[in-house]
Amino acid sequence: MSAPLRLGLAGLGTVGIGVVRIVQAQADLIATRSGRPVTITAVSARDRTKNRDADLSAYTWETDPVALATREDIDVFIEVMGGHDGPARHATEVAIASGKHVVTANKALLAHHGQVLAEAAERQGVALRFEAAVAGGIPVIKALTEGLAANRIKRVMGVMNGTCNYILTRMQSAGLPYETVFEEARQLGYLEADPNLDVGGIDAGHKLSILAAIAFGTRVSFDAVELEGIGNVSVDDIRLAEDMGYRIKLLGVAQMTGRGLEQRMTPCLVPADSPLGQLQGGTNMVVLEGDSVGQIVLRGPGAGMGPTASAVMADVIDIARGIRVPTFGIPASDLAQPKAATSATPAPYYLRMTLLDKPGALAKIATSLGDAGISIDQMRQLHRPGDRAEDAVVLIVTHKAAPADITHATASFATTGVLVGKPVAIRIEEV
Amino acid sequence: MSAPLRLGLAGLGTVGIGVVRIVQAQADLIATRSGRPVTITAVSARDRTKNRDADLSAYTWETDPVALATREDIDVFIEVMGGHDGPARHATEVAIASGKHVVTANKALLAHHGQVLAEAAERQGVALRFEAAVAGGIPVIKALTEGLAANRIKRVMGVMNGTCNYILTRMQSAGLPYETVFEEARQLGYLEADPNLDVGGIDAGHKLSILAAIAFGTRVSFDAVELEGIGNVSVDDIRLAEDMGYRIKLLGVAQMTGRGLEQRMTPCLVPADSPLGQLQGGTNMVVLEGDSVGQIVLRGPGAGMGPTASAVMADVIDIARGIRVPTFGIPASDLAQPKAATSATPAPYYLRMTLLDKPGALAKIATSLGDAGISIDQMRQLHRPGDRAEDAVVLIVTHKAAPADITHATASFATTGVLVGKPVAIRIEEV
Repeated sequence: MSAPLRLGLAGLGTVGIGVVRIVQAQADLIATRSGRPVTITAVSARDRTKNRDADLSAYTWETDPVALATREDIDVFIEVMGGHDGPARHATEVAIASGKHVVTANKALLAHHGQVLAEAAERQGVALRFEAAVAGGIPVIKALTEGLAANRIKRVMGVMNGTCNYILTRMQSAGLPYETVFEEARQLGYLEADPNLDVGGIDAGHKLSILAAIAFGTRVSFDAVELEGIGNVSVDDIRLAEDMGYRIKLLGVAQMTGRGLEQRMTPCLVPADSPLGQLQGGTNMVVLEGDSVGQIVLRGPGAGMGPTASAVMADVIDIARGIRVPTFGIPASDLAQPKAATSATPAPYYLRMTLLDKPGALAKIATSLGDAGISIDQMRQLHRPGDRAEDAVVLIVTHKAAPADITHATASFATTGVLVGKPVAIRIEEV
Repeated sequence: MSAPLRLGLAGLGTVGIGVVRIVQAQADLIATRSGRPVTITAVSARDRTKNRDADLSAYTWETDPVALATREDIDVFIEVMGGHDGPARHATEVAIASGKHVVTANKALLAHHGQVLAEAAERQGVALRFEAAVAGGIPVIKALTEGLAANRIKRVMGVMNGTCNYILTRMQSAGLPYETVFEEARQLGYLEADPNLDVGGIDAGHKLSILAAIAFGTRVSFDAVELEGIGNVSVDDIRLAEDMGYRIKLLGVAQMTGRGLEQRMTPCLVPADSPLGQLQGGTNMVVLEGDSVGQIVLRGPGAGMGPTASAVMADVIDIARGIRVPTFGIPASDLAQPKAATSATPAPYYLRMTLLDKPGALAKIATSLGDAGISIDQMRQLHRPGDRAEDAVVLIVTHKAAPADITHATASFATTGVLVGKPVAIRIEEV
């Protein structure tokens, strides 16, 4: 058996302690599978005195992650501190420059600085791995980069923020408004310190941009992701969509079109009986579509100590086994700068609006849609207990329409004189 | 860019031609991802004159796969002939002995000779890879061997024969008996030449035994798989199970227990709203459960030209990239001979029986169950149009019970004097 692979672990939060536990509990299993022992040499975190419920006594303590990153007695620098600038970034850069392999769970770091870091790692001949950064315990980076490597990827989709899916699922099952469930989630500790990272779709957008880079051989382009969070999703729309056979998910979609790379992370309707529609609570799902393989669906825990540490350690074992694959699947210098396209791929849309309940109102809306070249697949007019007597709620599912045409048509509804409030338009992603 | 990786392709059926198509259509993509060109040097099949709808003119033709396996100008021998003895086995052995890497889609070969072949490959320092052998296009071998390498695997489950799942799904949706749907499947070309490989559970059992070897670090032990096909599944049970919230699947389960390795490929009930329960038609699903990661579900096409060739080529690209992992995840000599255990893991059971509709009949059955230590979770007595006037159909869902106790109890029903015909007992796998 070869020499041990020696780890330096920067960050002793949930994920870091999860890594410590696996290394300690599964030492024999990992040595057998890796062909060599895997050991922790040194650790670092801000506060040494904190009780972490793990025995760290055998490890050298470094207060400064940069000092950890340059130690002669580590082969792999594990970055599970978080944050896309500051110490995480700096220590990662130093680790690479010092010839260490790097394993990180930091999606924000990769979304913002992935290209520069990948180039540096390749210059130094070290691995930069990040299975834990996308969809937690699901081995999706490996599935996409290696398992589907013979495919031209057509589309990547994913529900990749468990907190958002928890909130949307709970709104549906309990019939509670967003604000109430958001507050519940906060009290349960499900939200990031800056909740907008979750509910604003930023965290999930980071993940999507990383998957898109691998799928399409392009540089990570997070700034080009169309982002819309779940804050405007109403329990009304969740219920009405359900009645029509759909569920609302914060869904990421990346696809290469003739116009360029479309990336969006937005609330979407998906069929209730599809794997994505069936996804409840905090679980993640990623859908990969290749020209040869067709559709592959991966489902599993997207966060938590065990799953995230499992993914970090998969990368470590790959390194121990000598597996080397370029960071984003092809050499970083070959990654093309993607042409960012705003979404133009047509899709059916769900429209909800309130109209004045008077003769001809519906005809005016239908005419507006027709003028925009949009045809109607389903339509329902409702009057529910609690609706104002003079109002009618109208639901429309369109046939496939270009996003710009939907925007144009819904804007024109205001000129009909029959619209009450603002119409809601949500894309129905065909899965 | 390095020298080309040169392939010798033995077998030009559906999968072989799929490989040819990918190599030809995606040459640039594969070269970029592999870091080197991947080319086909020579091919072999029994009949050279057959029209195969692919341009093979650039490849040297070998009539004998053994001659192909020993050619100096190939680096990788791709075996997609099929059959677990005869030419496929012999040519694979010769290829390994000649220092060629081997990629195979042949589950039967691995289930019967995996240990010997893996040992030979390791002695020769060549790769023996088989992603396509289990669940077609789903990258499950990679997910289990590499993606979940930091986990002690607790259980592996799978619906891995698309034909069986097609038959069961169609029986359910159309209300047709097994024999009718079997005949439909035969006419659609879904069945192997020997249909028992499909409907007898043998093909799926081969796949399960391969997954179990990787999951538990044990030698492939196909002979120890408890096999029961779908030939005795009645449309009645499918319908009654559905009424109680379950679906019937040909489900493989492998788990390591204190008594040894349990492997079974049998019809089971699973909750209708679980991912396994939702699986319709020919799609495959594999569920992997690890101590750290929890449950990972993989879903995708289990057969067909594109998906299977995608998996073959993923192995080829791994080899081109220099990725080397032992055939079953750890060195073949370290694989332990598993102690085979007959299923003793308790589970709830679905019981259906017909009783004489007279006072005390049900009490006698309940007493038999109680005497065997089995308690009842749900019970229904039905009298449906078409049932004989003097009969009552009784459905029971038990609490968890040991399989041996179920066998004992159902055998004892015959002594009650109220049983008509034979009782049906189907395990409910907790997923």
